[in-house]
Amino acid sequence: METKAQVLYDFTAEPGNNELSVREGETITLTNQNVGGGWIEAKNSRGEVGLVPEDYIEIKQAQPFTSGGNAASLDLSLFDSHIPAPASTAQTSNGNDPWAVFDNNASGGVSNNWAAQPEGTETGKTSSNAWHSGGHVHPQAYQGADIYPYPCLIDLSGAEDDEWDEEWDDVKSSGGYAESEAGEGGAINRGGAHGSSMKIALNKFPGFSKSGPELYLLSKQPAKGTKLPVYGGEVGPVWAYPDYQLDCVVADPKKGSKMYGLKSYIEYQVTPTTTNKPVNHRYKHFDWLYERLLDKFGSAIPIPCLPDKQVTGRFEEEFIKMRMERLQGWMSRMCRHPVISSSEVFQLFLSYKDEKDWKTGKRKAEKDETVGVMIFSTIEPEGLPDLDLTEVEQKCEQFNRFTRAMDDGVKDLLTVGNEHWKRCTGPLPKEYQRIGKAFQNLSSVFTSSGYEGEAALTDALTAAGKTYEDIAQMVAEQPKKDLHFLMETNNEYKGLLGCFPDTIGVHKAAIEKVKEGDKLVATGKITTSEKTAMSKRASTMSYALQAEMNHFHSNRIYDYNRVMQQYLEQQVKFYEMIAEKLRNAHSQFTTM
Amino acid sequence: METKAQVLYDFTAEPGNNELSVREGETITLTNQNVGGGWIEAKNSRGEVGLVPEDYIEIKQAQPFTSGGNAASLDLSLFDSHIPAPASTAQTSNGNDPWAVFDNNASGGVSNNWAAQPEGTETGKTSSNAWHSGGHVHPQAYQGADIYPYPCLIDLSGAEDDEWDEEWDDVKSSGGYAESEAGEGGAINRGGAHGSSMKIALNKFPGFSKSGPELYLLSKQPAKGTKLPVYGGEVGPVWAYPDYQLDCVVADPKKGSKMYGLKSYIEYQVTPTTTNKPVNHRYKHFDWLYERLLDKFGSAIPIPCLPDKQVTGRFEEEFIKMRMERLQGWMSRMCRHPVISSSEVFQLFLSYKDEKDWKTGKRKAEKDETVGVMIFSTIEPEGLPDLDLTEVEQKCEQFNRFTRAMDDGVKDLLTVGNEHWKRCTGPLPKEYQRIGKAFQNLSSVFTSSGYEGEAALTDALTAAGKTYEDIAQMVAEQPKKDLHFLMETNNEYKGLLGCFPDTIGVHKAAIEKVKEGDKLVATGKITTSEKTAMSKRASTMSYALQAEMNHFHSNRIYDYNRVMQQYLEQQVKFYEMIAEKLRNAHSQFTTM
Repeated sequence: METKAQVLYDFTAEPGNNELSVREGETITLTNQNVGGGWIEAKNSRGEVGLVPEDYIEIKQAQPFTSGGNAASLDLSLFDSHIPAPASTAQTSNGNDPWAVFDNNASGGVSNNWAAQPEGTETGKTSSNAWHSGGHVHPQAYQGADIYPYPCLIDLSGAEDDEWDEEWDDVKSSGGYAESEAGEGGAINRGGAHGSSMKIALNKFPGFSKSGPELYLLSKQPAKGTKLPVYGGEVGPVWAYPDYQLDCVVADPKKGSKMYGLKSYIEYQVTPTTTNKPVNHRYKHFDWLYERLLDKFGSAIPIPCLPDKQVTGRFEEEFIKMRMERLQGWMSRMCRHPVISSSEVFQLFLSYKDEKDWKTGKRKAEKDETVGVMIFSTIEPEGLPDLDLTEVEQKCEQFNRFTRAMDDGVKDLLTVGNEHWKRCTGPLPKEYQRIGKAFQNLSSVFTSSGYEGEAALTDALTAAGKTYEDIAQMVAEQPKKDLHFLMETNNEYKGLLGCFPDTIGVHKAAIEKVKEGDKLVATGKITTSEKTAMSKRASTMSYALQAEMNHFHSNRIYDYNRVMQQYLEQQVKFYEMIAEKLRNAHSQFTTM
Repeated sequence: METKAQVLYDFTAEPGNNELSVREGETITLTNQNVGGGWIEAKNSRGEVGLVPEDYIEIKQAQPFTSGGNAASLDLSLFDSHIPAPASTAQTSNGNDPWAVFDNNASGGVSNNWAAQPEGTETGKTSSNAWHSGGHVHPQAYQGADIYPYPCLIDLSGAEDDEWDEEWDDVKSSGGYAESEAGEGGAINRGGAHGSSMKIALNKFPGFSKSGPELYLLSKQPAKGTKLPVYGGEVGPVWAYPDYQLDCVVADPKKGSKMYGLKSYIEYQVTPTTTNKPVNHRYKHFDWLYERLLDKFGSAIPIPCLPDKQVTGRFEEEFIKMRMERLQGWMSRMCRHPVISSSEVFQLFLSYKDEKDWKTGKRKAEKDETVGVMIFSTIEPEGLPDLDLTEVEQKCEQFNRFTRAMDDGVKDLLTVGNEHWKRCTGPLPKEYQRIGKAFQNLSSVFTSSGYEGEAALTDALTAAGKTYEDIAQMVAEQPKKDLHFLMETNNEYKGLLGCFPDTIGVHKAAIEKVKEGDKLVATGKITTSEKTAMSKRASTMSYALQAEMNHFHSNRIYDYNRVMQQYLEQQVKFYEMIAEKLRNAHSQFTTM
């Protein structure tokens, strides 16, 4: 029986990549669901066959999952908790609320695309394939609030040696995206459509798919790697902050090429403030770093996505500039994080000595075993009392509520800001221009009167008209000076907040597991001391989460203070400049 | 045979007036075209019969004019000139360009609603009836640039003792008008849709319909009435300006009633700056004054229409305020005119002693014979050489070009201004409000964080949000403070400029007549000395026109200087106030 699917979003094939262009609403026939890497092979009504991102389609008939189906990034059903399987898979289906998984009410009646899935389907077994292939799927978690109409494309960067990777790394012009922005005259790249939830690669390690957080909760291995202490600070548990705040500068993008010039790429210069010695990195290196950080810290620390790969400007320059700006924002955020910035892999990225040093460090990082939930084994609450499960749960709930609410608030601001951007760069300056033209037009009519002594009026009227034309230009250019940063910051936070459902999900899963402690003891699955250890470890996890939340809060306060100041400062300047211009125009009229 | 007509505009019947509500595009059957007063009786498809303004309909089949048909206000065909009859009747058909009549090209091929009219129809005979009945039709001359969708209603004020007159004088609520404005929150009454061309009652006098301007050009009577000297000023021919500039204040509207309270009206207090003694006038008195001024000076001086009678606000107060403001503007303009302000009828209106004085003066004014083109017989160019016809024609052409161009410019500015008004009172403040709400929303989310020490940020963020809500309100209220006056002034000029085609038309007709001089002598219709007198009188007319144009120019320069200053001053204040508010908001964020 043929499997049909409906296309959810337009997708334009990259030439030479064996891809198939599809349009939203189109029905396609799936010819191979086992392609992997987030792709499926499909045939359209004209009989053309090619690859389509599986995230762009919705399979029409309920059927058992196959490895080619939508991959579940964090399948809580494996953990035998109260949360039903369909809810977890909702994470990766387009347009669904990632928070739904962790919603207290969600377990009652989950409504998503997969609700129709036959009960008893073993979703667990199938999801691992997709992960092992390295093809992470970035779901369009926040589509509702998205500024741009295009969903995130598939991230193929995990396939290090794949030819496609080179393609993605190239500077490309994308059709619809660039065009849709051109009309707004400057709204380019802002807002971004990158999927904002991170994929915690819990199931990258043998046996994990059968254990989830219990890998840590019930771990008997001694902790490996650098210890991560959590202290009791003024605001509660905090990470250990370094004396010197690391930062770096991403600058000087240079075009390089390989394969006899057939492939071109951009190399950015990254200069850490510590060594002040620049290193060069391509986008794919940043992406490699992202993957490593996600693997290693993702269960404890939300690692925001890199800026969209598919973000393209109308001009190459704009594209490069915007990507650089966002890589800078991402790097600065990573530098500000005490745990991340002091990690070996991050230090390697920022200050490798030479190519050999880089390659050795790279291999070592890729072999790191203290990844996934095992990161918690390195957490050491210093002088902090064990928390009971109620406290742990309360904190987790509180963070969940807050991050959800902030996510809504940020989305709201982004939506409003985007509309404002459109008005400021579209109809509003056009109107000021027309007012300016109308004044100048009237002035030139007056000049034709033949009446003597009205030069003072006509000159003043022309000047007033030109002033409104100037104002039109100022209005159109202003968003780049103020709204841009407000949008970028909120966009960054949107990305960051999109990671919390995953991070908090790990904690919720652990809490559920600890709650089952008595039952597990009763059925002989764990011993009483194991149960006690689990509870203590949940407390440790909670300290990590609290330290992370406190880090988030202090950064948030800093960031919003800064961006609001910047925004208002520029707004003041803007209105003052308009007032000044109009004052000048006013002064040219004769006082009578 | 039934006469059908198509409804051009929506019309809502006033209850108790025997009127019929009709909708644009509806077909009605005319049951009585001889109602007079600008009304016809019609039946709709549901068999309902009632009165409909004849200006609101277009008769479907070509047929001879009747007294109930559209009245021709200035029928140049009577003057035996080169201008064909249909062109002149175009003046009163809705939506046609009033300039077309006087356009050099117009005589070639006039295209208007009446083009289909059978040739040879005696339009002359029939048009006078309409005039004698007092039912002047205000054509919708500038509909293209109109701000409001509603055309001018019929002016019935000429029918002094008609019961309807009382109705028009009442304060009424009109359906669509008020509603269409309400949405814009304050755009009420601005712009107005009053017909802007004046009706020169040339054919009100026996024999005139056979003579036109030649009544003056070939007049043998000695001039009656006050002499109107024209001097050679710095800018060219000028009227004699009084030492003291008359002005008056229209204020203190009071509701009066008659017929045992069944009819109510508004009485305005008019106080001239000379006597400082207030007199009371109802709208219909202003309208009576307008009619007298039009009769007496209309051939030489453009007399702008009174503010629309049908202009209504959502609330009675708004309506009265707006009408008063416009009556003030109209009166001030009349006061500023040296010829009008010093005329007996105007002085009577401003400073009658008592009811008896008023009634006596009224009767006298209505019997004035120096009206129409005969006003030129009182013009006395002082120490100015006779102009030859070429000069006269050049000046006339120049004024025609200028007033046309300015008319376009003013219309353009009104259109732009109206759009700006809509944006400023509609979508723009809504957007600022949403920005404000988004900031406050984020602030309240932050407050819920449970993180200590962020009160400074949340307070500042709330304040910033409130600031944008304040700005929203400021933006919405600003047009009333600045754009309003710019619009009102331009609207006044639109009305004034709409009178020029008629005024200039009289001059053009005179020029044509003088040009025919030789032919008239040759055919024995006039003597050589009459021909010479005609030429001299055309020169006198030209001096009057030049004096009037110079008056127009100097007023225009004054008015536009003043209104632009006012507009820009308010704009500066507006932007400064926004900047100040934002500076306050900015200062509340913590400097870090």
